Amino acid sequence: MDEVTLTSLAASAADLARSIDTIWVLITAALVFFMQAGFALVEAGFTRSKNTVNILYKNLMDFSVGSIVFWVLGFGLMFGTDIAGFIGTPDLFFKNGWTGGIPAEAFLIFQTVFAATAATIVSGAMAERTEFKSYLIFSLVVSAVIYPVSGHWIWGGGWLSQLATPFHDFAGSTVVHMVGGVVALTGAMALGPRLGKYNGKKVNAIPGHSMTLGALGVFILWLGWFGFNPGSQLAASGSANATAISHIFVTTNLSAVAGALAALVISWLKWGKPSLSFALNGALAGLVGVTAGCAVVTASGALLIGLISGAVLVFAVTFIDNVLHIDDPVGAISVHGVCGALGTIMVGLFSESTGLFYGHGAAQLVTQLIGVAAVAAWAGVTGFILFRILKATVGLRVPKRIEEEGLDIYEHGESAYN
Amino acid sequence: MDEVTLTSLAASAADLARSIDTIWVLITAALVFFMQAGFALVEAGFTRSKNTVNILYKNLMDFSVGSIVFWVLGFGLMFGTDIAGFIGTPDLFFKNGWTGGIPAEAFLIFQTVFAATAATIVSGAMAERTEFKSYLIFSLVVSAVIYPVSGHWIWGGGWLSQLATPFHDFAGSTVVHMVGGVVALTGAMALGPRLGKYNGKKVNAIPGHSMTLGALGVFILWLGWFGFNPGSQLAASGSANATAISHIFVTTNLSAVAGALAALVISWLKWGKPSLSFALNGALAGLVGVTAGCAVVTASGALLIGLISGAVLVFAVTFIDNVLHIDDPVGAISVHGVCGALGTIMVGLFSESTGLFYGHGAAQLVTQLIGVAAVAAWAGVTGFILFRILKATVGLRVPKRIEEEGLDIYEHGESAYN
Amino acid sequence: MDEVTLTSLAASAADLARSIDTIWVLITAALVFFMQAGFALVEAGFTRSKNTVNILYKNLMDFSVGSIVFWVLGFGLMFGTDIAGFIGTPDLFFKNGWTGGIPAEAFLIFQTVFAATAATIVSGAMAERTEFKSYLIFSLVVSAVIYPVSGHWIWGGGWLSQLATPFHDFAGSTVVHMVGGVVALTGAMALGPRLGKYNGKKVNAIPGHSMTLGALGVFILWLGWFGFNPGSQLAASGSANATAISHIFVTTNLSAVAGALAALVISWLKWGKPSLSFALNGALAGLVGVTAGCAVVTASGALLIGLISGAVLVFAVTFIDNVLHIDDPVGAISVHGVCGALGTIMVGLFSESTGLFYGHGAAQLVTQLIGVAAVAAWAGVTGFILFRILKATVGLRVPKRIEEEGLDIYEHGESAYN
Repeated sequence: MDEVTLTSLAASAADLARSIDTIWVLITAALVFFMQAGFALVEAGFTRSKNTVNILYKNLMDFSVGSIVFWVLGFGLMFGTDIAGFIGTPDLFFKNGWTGGIPAEAFLIFQTVFAATAATIVSGAMAERTEFKSYLIFSLVVSAVIYPVSGHWIWGGGWLSQLATPFHDFAGSTVVHMVGGVVALTGAMALGPRLGKYNGKKVNAIPGHSMTLGALGVFILWLGWFGFNPGSQLAASGSANATAISHIFVTTNLSAVAGALAALVISWLKWGKPSLSFALNGALAGLVGVTAGCAVVTASGALLIGLISGAVLVFAVTFIDNVLHIDDPVGAISVHGVCGALGTIMVGLFSESTGLFYGHGAAQLVTQLIGVAAVAAWAGVTGFILFRILKATVGLRVPKRIEEEGLDIYEHGESAYN
Repeated sequence: MDEVTLTSLAASAADLARSIDTIWVLITAALVFFMQAGFALVEAGFTRSKNTVNILYKNLMDFSVGSIVFWVLGFGLMFGTDIAGFIGTPDLFFKNGWTGGIPAEAFLIFQTVFAATAATIVSGAMAERTEFKSYLIFSLVVSAVIYPVSGHWIWGGGWLSQLATPFHDFAGSTVVHMVGGVVALTGAMALGPRLGKYNGKKVNAIPGHSMTLGALGVFILWLGWFGFNPGSQLAASGSANATAISHIFVTTNLSAVAGALAALVISWLKWGKPSLSFALNGALAGLVGVTAGCAVVTASGALLIGLISGAVLVFAVTFIDNVLHIDDPVGAISVHGVCGALGTIMVGLFSESTGLFYGHGAAQLVTQLIGVAAVAAWAGVTGFILFRILKATVGLRVPKRIEEEGLDIYEHGESAYN
Repeated sequence: MDEVTLTSLAASAADLARSIDTIWVLITAALVFFMQAGFALVEAGFTRSKNTVNILYKNLMDFSVGSIVFWVLGFGLMFGTDIAGFIGTPDLFFKNGWTGGIPAEAFLIFQTVFAATAATIVSGAMAERTEFKSYLIFSLVVSAVIYPVSGHWIWGGGWLSQLATPFHDFAGSTVVHMVGGVVALTGAMALGPRLGKYNGKKVNAIPGHSMTLGALGVFILWLGWFGFNPGSQLAASGSANATAISHIFVTTNLSAVAGALAALVISWLKWGKPSLSFALNGALAGLVGVTAGCAVVTASGALLIGLISGAVLVFAVTFIDNVLHIDDPVGAISVHGVCGALGTIMVGLFSESTGLFYGHGAAQLVTQLIGVAAVAAWAGVTGFILFRILKATVGLRVPKRIEEEGLDIYEHGESAYN
């Protein structure tokens, strides 16, 4: 053994701390990766079997295209040296080294699985009628540009993080989910509803083909969230980090279960029967809602966020479907867009250190509102333009006959079930 | 850097040890959480498709209701300051701080996912005929009271842990599985068999709707058990812990595979064909059986426990079905109740440090028998009373017509498959 | 607290390093274990529903039989004291202690889940027509002998690791995947094609029964690969290990996504429609391909390996099916055999430290070619002999009537779906 000195021991302790942080980030990244399977199952389960190959394929491609373009371009735009608070320096291809206490590549893979999530959210709202080719281009643009730019504002040192009271979105209620949800809204609007969904004022339910797949998908997403939120601490070494990640596990879980319960109760009161699909989406709503504040709210605060998110979800889905007549087959706009915004704003109310309800004034709340509005505008406008361009060029929607007979056979020459 | 001293370095080493323990407990907690998906799939797969929404919903709610009431009440009853060896002080809502080497919230989330498992076990035995409202109340009582009280006796400092030779149930063959299995028995008896299951002496098999879901569920449960058992060490820092958790991985796995093989062989000999559903349940039987002793038996001991558990399972299922005429659609009473008790008792035989077969006398065996009997009595009596009350008030069983046409449409207004 | 000295602190730091390495190996082993579920779903999804119980059963048994015989015999053959470069000393049953920085039992469980993978690969190629009893024997022999011997050559200190330029197969493109793929080839050839697969020159596609299961299986395998490759570092403590495992995460993922994209593009160009089943197998091809070199290639190198593997896969599947008329229902020979060999050879081209394209000459490439040829010969010859013996004794293929009506009912008395 080399000579042992106080200095060499201190260095070796620091080295072990880095190792602990690295395995934490990598394992949680693996859990977040697995959310791709969760999204694929939720979206497949809640849509019809004639379009299952297509929806599975889009999920696979969101991750495949996203992993590459985020590595080549998006990561630099999001985390590169800040330019005027708006974007990072697009340092083409990724450079090695260290980011804080972890290898840069650990940070890259963690951010990659996050970036892919944003694009994947959209596919649910655009299910059963979107041209495959168009979807690939859209997915590329989201992961390469739309997601990284607003991400830079919040996590990359951009203007929202530079405010006197910085915008707080710990694990991405806004960065990931609301961006996905808002782009999903522009996509669903650009496409129009599925054939037969709305006859004048009449709204037809188009039930999915497998609630079992949907439920399994939600459990997988929930598991993934135990990577998504506690992993966003990006460190586990030392008592403070250990306490923080433990707390985040608890708040994440309590909000999820509260969301499921709230949706159960509201759907039971509203329609006389407890709906499973609402309870499942309620759990997701609770998870999305607590993602921004999971590190700064108490356990009781998390429970409240979950209850509110789960309740609002039921009304949001109903409103978007029955009143706005926007056809979102899996409820992605409500789960990720509405509850993402809501959860971010609630940080301004329930944060123990900066929230209104803890006597800290409205500064955080105001910042949260500004941030949500700005990011929603960014994602909404860029999404709108992107889908316009796609519509005018490659075309966004499949022909009527393909939609009727199913995208699987016509676009892929394969059926999901035989 | 602050001045480095021997004392500061020792503190930082202790701090890193706490971090290692914390990430170990959190990651294994995430794996145990995922067992909810495993149970949901096993129970859905082994029952009919007309009741799939209902069974998935119950699994989701076991975890949702359980997470909240265990946090509010159950955790205190189980781990609070001991009162007369019988219960812990019900310290309403959870208090932060440290539990041994990990943050109290890490311990809370780990115990929460365990508590939810006990309730979830029951839903399988009560599948396809239980009133949803009743089930929710039952699930709440199990997680809030029944499970925590006997859990306190064993893990919370209660009377079974105070015996001269303390009761040994490392990861919960009795605490979790037998409690679930015994309550399942009282539930199945209170309900009576499904319509058409028994015509006089004739026993009709009612096959489940998807063996694929069942098999996937078993693989997920198996994965979860690599959290359940090694995670129960609650620490990973230091060579002794590292050796212990590695050993538990090996014993857990060997017992599982031996259980599957034993069930394969016995079912092949008994019916002339190797049955997959028995092999799957055999693997679960091996896992349940080794859960009590996984840390104190040798690899060969674990293999033996698995073989015995898997073999007994086949006879237990057949006996409960054909002789007792108790209708347990998924075999939960046999897997969790019978093999949970059996595995706990076998600690008295196969424990390297205290077992009869290693020349240590019968003291451990006697304690194990006392503990199993006491906990079975507790779970049996409270379960019996609970279901009596539910039957006399809200009602326990759905009307005949609903059972015939399926619970999904009538109770939830949704079908699993379209 | 004990007196703190420089020596005691150094010992405690070393102890923590061992703990970090141990949890890394155990958690990644759990992920690799979960690949069994992934294989089961891929193979079930890509075959017909009348044989689903059978294929699930074979997967369960590969792992069950394999876990036991590898513990009893295989581990010693693979890692025991080297005998003449050819086998390890078959040290019956496993001995405790430490292997490098981790407990021997952590190493054992990690190697066990790897061994089981090799056997599992074969079941896909032999699906829908193999006698169950025969399959169990075959599976036992692969895990006990065939896999461990060639594994010894590479990972156990045998002749391929003793060459001047040692054979490099970091995580098992050859050790695990090519061995599985080559044995799969001998099995598919010994069996002959399924009834109705080839009518003279006409090749009939026999579509699987669920693309959803197939896709979920691929996502699970992908998740498992984040254990398979980075776990093979067998350590995570210290900056060098932390950097290495982070890099392996990135290379593994980039090759997977590149494989999916390449298969998408080639299948689109070849048949006018993007095929999901090819894209899924393309992702697997990328994962298999990068497994040998994941630690020594750059991110760009990994992307290239993935593109090549995904592209070659499409041609390999087509060639084996249309030209060779070898019936491999799930494409296992191409994914694991062809891309395993290819990925191993590409180490000689793309390794940063020894590859031809980095100006290091052809020594590594020559070694890789020798190793691939030798292992292919070993697996091919032993597989050929094994299946000959099985054919001549217990019989390898089920009778025509059983194949037509499905193996599930005849061999197991159970249907997968009701």
